[in-house]
Amino acid sequence: MNDLKKLVILSFCLILSWSAGAQQHPSIMITGKNVAAIRKGIQAYPVLAKSYSKVKDDADQALKEGISVPLPADGGGGFTHEQHKKNYIHILNCGIAYQISGDKKYADYIKNILLKYAASYEQWPLHPKRKDGHQGGRIFWQSLNDFVWQVYTIQGYDLAYNAIDAKDRETIEEHLFMPILQFFTQDCKETFDKIHNHGTWDIAAVGMTGYVLHLPNYVEMALKGSNKDGKTGYLAQIDQLFSPDGYYTEGPYYQRYALLPFIILAKTINNYDPQRQIFNYRNQLLSKAINTSLQLTYTTGNFFPINDAIKDKTFESAELVYGVDIAYADIKAQPELLDIAQRQNEVIVSDAGLKIAEAIKAGKNQPFVYHTEWIGDGLDGTEGGLGILRSGSNSDQQCVLIKAASQGMGHGHFDRLNMLYYDHSVEVFPDYGAARFLNIETKKGGDYLPENKTWAKQTVAHNTLVVDETSNFNLDADLAQTAHPEKIFFKNDGKIKAVSAAETKAYPGVNMKRTTALVTIDGLNKPILIDVFQALSSQNHQYDLPFWYNGQLVISSFKINGIKNNLKALGDDNGYQHIWLNAEETVPAKGGYIGVLNNKRFYTTHFTTGSELKVKLLSLGANDPDMSLVESKAFMLSQKQAKNQVFFSITESHGKVDPVNETTVGANSSISDLQIISANEQQVALSFKVKNKTYQYTINYQDKNNQIQLK
Amino acid sequence: MNDLKKLVILSFCLILSWSAGAQQHPSIMITGKNVAAIRKGIQAYPVLAKSYSKVKDDADQALKEGISVPLPADGGGGFTHEQHKKNYIHILNCGIAYQISGDKKYADYIKNILLKYAASYEQWPLHPKRKDGHQGGRIFWQSLNDFVWQVYTIQGYDLAYNAIDAKDRETIEEHLFMPILQFFTQDCKETFDKIHNHGTWDIAAVGMTGYVLHLPNYVEMALKGSNKDGKTGYLAQIDQLFSPDGYYTEGPYYQRYALLPFIILAKTINNYDPQRQIFNYRNQLLSKAINTSLQLTYTTGNFFPINDAIKDKTFESAELVYGVDIAYADIKAQPELLDIAQRQNEVIVSDAGLKIAEAIKAGKNQPFVYHTEWIGDGLDGTEGGLGILRSGSNSDQQCVLIKAASQGMGHGHFDRLNMLYYDHSVEVFPDYGAARFLNIETKKGGDYLPENKTWAKQTVAHNTLVVDETSNFNLDADLAQTAHPEKIFFKNDGKIKAVSAAETKAYPGVNMKRTTALVTIDGLNKPILIDVFQALSSQNHQYDLPFWYNGQLVISSFKINGIKNNLKALGDDNGYQHIWLNAEETVPAKGGYIGVLNNKRFYTTHFTTGSELKVKLLSLGANDPDMSLVESKAFMLSQKQAKNQVFFSITESHGKVDPVNETTVGANSSISDLQIISANEQQVALSFKVKNKTYQYTINYQDKNNQIQLK
Repeated sequence: MNDLKKLVILSFCLILSWSAGAQQHPSIMITGKNVAAIRKGIQAYPVLAKSYSKVKDDADQALKEGISVPLPADGGGGFTHEQHKKNYIHILNCGIAYQISGDKKYADYIKNILLKYAASYEQWPLHPKRKDGHQGGRIFWQSLNDFVWQVYTIQGYDLAYNAIDAKDRETIEEHLFMPILQFFTQDCKETFDKIHNHGTWDIAAVGMTGYVLHLPNYVEMALKGSNKDGKTGYLAQIDQLFSPDGYYTEGPYYQRYALLPFIILAKTINNYDPQRQIFNYRNQLLSKAINTSLQLTYTTGNFFPINDAIKDKTFESAELVYGVDIAYADIKAQPELLDIAQRQNEVIVSDAGLKIAEAIKAGKNQPFVYHTEWIGDGLDGTEGGLGILRSGSNSDQQCVLIKAASQGMGHGHFDRLNMLYYDHSVEVFPDYGAARFLNIETKKGGDYLPENKTWAKQTVAHNTLVVDETSNFNLDADLAQTAHPEKIFFKNDGKIKAVSAAETKAYPGVNMKRTTALVTIDGLNKPILIDVFQALSSQNHQYDLPFWYNGQLVISSFKINGIKNNLKALGDDNGYQHIWLNAEETVPAKGGYIGVLNNKRFYTTHFTTGSELKVKLLSLGANDPDMSLVESKAFMLSQKQAKNQVFFSITESHGKVDPVNETTVGANSSISDLQIISANEQQVALSFKVKNKTYQYTINYQDKNNQIQLK
Repeated sequence: MNDLKKLVILSFCLILSWSAGAQQHPSIMITGKNVAAIRKGIQAYPVLAKSYSKVKDDADQALKEGISVPLPADGGGGFTHEQHKKNYIHILNCGIAYQISGDKKYADYIKNILLKYAASYEQWPLHPKRKDGHQGGRIFWQSLNDFVWQVYTIQGYDLAYNAIDAKDRETIEEHLFMPILQFFTQDCKETFDKIHNHGTWDIAAVGMTGYVLHLPNYVEMALKGSNKDGKTGYLAQIDQLFSPDGYYTEGPYYQRYALLPFIILAKTINNYDPQRQIFNYRNQLLSKAINTSLQLTYTTGNFFPINDAIKDKTFESAELVYGVDIAYADIKAQPELLDIAQRQNEVIVSDAGLKIAEAIKAGKNQPFVYHTEWIGDGLDGTEGGLGILRSGSNSDQQCVLIKAASQGMGHGHFDRLNMLYYDHSVEVFPDYGAARFLNIETKKGGDYLPENKTWAKQTVAHNTLVVDETSNFNLDADLAQTAHPEKIFFKNDGKIKAVSAAETKAYPGVNMKRTTALVTIDGLNKPILIDVFQALSSQNHQYDLPFWYNGQLVISSFKINGIKNNLKALGDDNGYQHIWLNAEETVPAKGGYIGVLNNKRFYTTHFTTGSELKVKLLSLGANDPDMSLVESKAFMLSQKQAKNQVFFSITESHGKVDPVNETTVGANSSISDLQIISANEQQVALSFKVKNKTYQYTINYQDKNNQIQLK
């Protein structure tokens, strides 16, 4: 067949493909026409070779292990749970291995394991370990994992399709995929129609299956909801789950997770229905969401662990490998995405991965550019957001995150105006993340621990103000969902990068404003972190501002008298019951400082409230009968009784300890004499000294032309 | 001048050099004849280029900063301390920069700063911050730092010598170096003649200065002691400070430190007096000491932190860069040393560094080979020692250290039969090291903290047996110095790597034996760690065996009831006062297990004592008013009253957690049913099951042909 002839036939097939019902296989991440090129690419491009080798190793492992489709019994981390997870990975990897190697044994594995599932699936009841408040699955304890299973499995099936004979396909489709579609859309209808990441996975599974099996009815349901009226379904989810800045309200950890079904279904739609231009939908929203996911990481690759987050999670996770590959290949070939792909050191063995691998090999990559930016939350981007301040190179970057986003649904923490601070590739003021040992069966089946609620979600677990030893909204998630902080201003003018936000509902009768800035001072090596937390109230309150920190305490302006014995919990409730009080000191009105050595650098935090205050040194672990809490330490600035209160602090990152060469430089902070000159609803005027030069620092909440002045 | 002529003159000079008094400069790390080759090498070899660039940056920094020779005033980490430290580094680096660049400005810096020192030195009294029990210096608070200063400075002077005019040299030698020699040999005579690492630095400074200034009298004193009778001095130190295995009794941290003056003086002697064949002295002892230093590291490069050690210290430290370069270039060109040099990513810009850089560029390096070995302590190698067991690749190695060495003088810890366990590039059962914030002025001037004695040296701070809540030898260092543990056997036969040692003096009336092994079991991925600690006594004692661990507790065979409030110290003294008791549980005679997740791998420790025992969960920090103690955790096996007692434990390293891909495998340990069948002075017979197969494990202390049997 000559090339022209091929082209004509190919064009013909493409035009007819979806609309006329002639299905091409495979047609999702790998399309048939690119198989030869990917095979060649594996020879030519190291990252593609390495990625394929991993895929093939797993596929060979699958063949070696043989097929195991156990009756679903265990919760997260348990045997049947992990086996069914392994199975879907095996199925996908065998599908890829079949396409690349052409060796039918991989397709046979898929055929055989799917026949095995098809022989059992209809007999499986709802999972015995399902839990109240979670829609149970049939393969896994929660339906979410079933959806994920199908998103992977249907790709493997698509990849092996042409090697499975029609009769077996019929068995598989009739006794596995059709019952699955029915389960996903009917039994799980509520989830299917919910604007929520579980819903996205359900929709993606149904939509992809619909395309692969050529079931337009299911495709339409996936796109427009089970009523096909567009009120729910995929497009409604794109409209409603992300802000215009591409932020997903549950936070980065869940944004990453939510992203995969969005983009993989988008890729499927784009292949089958290119005229939809799905990647252009809502002003290229999916591209924004991928980029925003990357902006929601520190330079280590770790996602900002706000809300219920597993702290080890990085942009190396599979979701972002898909995201980066598709963003580069199918949306816009930004060369800085190649930097991320290189650090991921992996591509999806696919049409998109081929493009990435080719571009890396051609040396097209440019360093990833981290932005100082405000990322708005909410449908129209006005329901608060995240303020991210960055300074320095990708190898030694200061980064401040102020969380002024909305509650973020069920996985939200009660940490309005929370601050995270990173420097020198480590956490300086960390967030605890979730209280959870993911996939550790012995720790509550890998699920959230009770301490997630009693500790991790509580306000005092975060670097933000606690009023009267209670948590924001008294930990009422529904109430919290009704209100969000307001951005006052965001500024990025080079010398001053600042974010200012207000929260007025979290504590009734208390108006809170936080203005946090990275400020460059002549004569200092690095910007200083100026943090001004103001609370205004007509009533007296106890105000506690904790700074959870990493590192070792090495200096303080006041004598610390560590409590020697009979350590007591700081309080009875709202997270305070989990905190040990290690020391409590009185600091005079002029303020003081505390210095910490962390990753060979000093962090000295100077502070004043303009009146005498207590500084409490804290560690985590009280009332923890199962010993599930992870070591954490804080110093807490505490004002027992005040109506209006400003907490003014400056954290200087300075000096260097080289333990290998045994040298120390710059151990002393250059900051001193913090003063609160005046503070009211309109303005806070402050001053401080750097090496004996006095600076006036004024925050104007209302004057748009003079939001921050430094003189 | 033609080449032949040059060669004749050169040879003539060489022959005459030391004996006839015609001095060549420079003649220590860089010799004049190699300068041209080093210059070329900097163009050709990346690691040499990088190393020189660092040297030159520091030299340029020195020129930029100008000269500062402050009146000595501050302790470790303080301004004058750090300035004088910087000065000697600057002096050496300017010397190298002068030789390589030929730019006289670097030599002028050396001339000027030394003239400045020469103008003040004689007026400086003993340092105001000197301490009781430490010989004070004049530049630094302790004379040790003065010696180090001179070891570096004399090299810089030697490098710049030819560019300093005779009159200035006379001033520098008369008013700085001669008074220094006098101070080092007369005021510091006791140190100079002491067989101790401070003495080595003193001797090296005096010997090198003697060579460079051509003062044979001082050279002879350096080699043979101030009485020139050979009872003290350099050769006596080589004879007495190292064991035949090249072990320095204070432990790895001090071995590294002690090494530099040894090898740099050796290099100087070798250049000036090659006929001494100093590197062959005592059966190539210095070469052994360098290799042993490397064997005393884990694969991360960190030295085993036994005794007073700073835990961050790695073989990247300058001493080991010198050591590796000289060992390769001047003693024996072992290609595996190039692996270390590559990981150091630095060479000394010198004759030796040139050879290393050349060899690396030529691709001669081979992976460093870590040995399973016994390293004997003591003059004849029979005063106990260290047993090191290793298994696995350099990137994922299990490593066990049993410390059965002698006390190690003043920096020794009271931790007879202590165990350190590493795996997967992290500490599993760590040692605390020293309680010290090196060079942090605010933490007791960077010196050892009070907690070094009240905590870090105490027996309970280590992974070894504590009898009756006291420490070995009741913390009497002099007494401890009189006795050492005995090696019972050491075995390395592939399937079983084992060390067995006894200590009978640390607790009067208690005979302690520890036999620790890495044992390969068919069907398990990694060897298991079998630890058998036996105590025999005619009296009743309380026996506590702590396992200080890293990671998070995830499983236990018994219910743990964490103490919820009013945390109490475990005891009153001997380190117990610093420990919080977090939980205390009773475990039945058949034993139990505790499992920890550390760096994404599981470590399950099964244990039994054959009788009911208490397991105590501990954390560090009680009675720590300055909050100086670093977070640490342990589980402690505790037997309240027993005469004879065996603690039998097996720690399995198993499974894998991948938080990025959210998978967990192998979370369950395969070990069970530990049993102590019999135990007496001759033999301990044990059994355990692996996946339901029973193994008999027998230790024979006296039968040399059957020390360990596994059936």
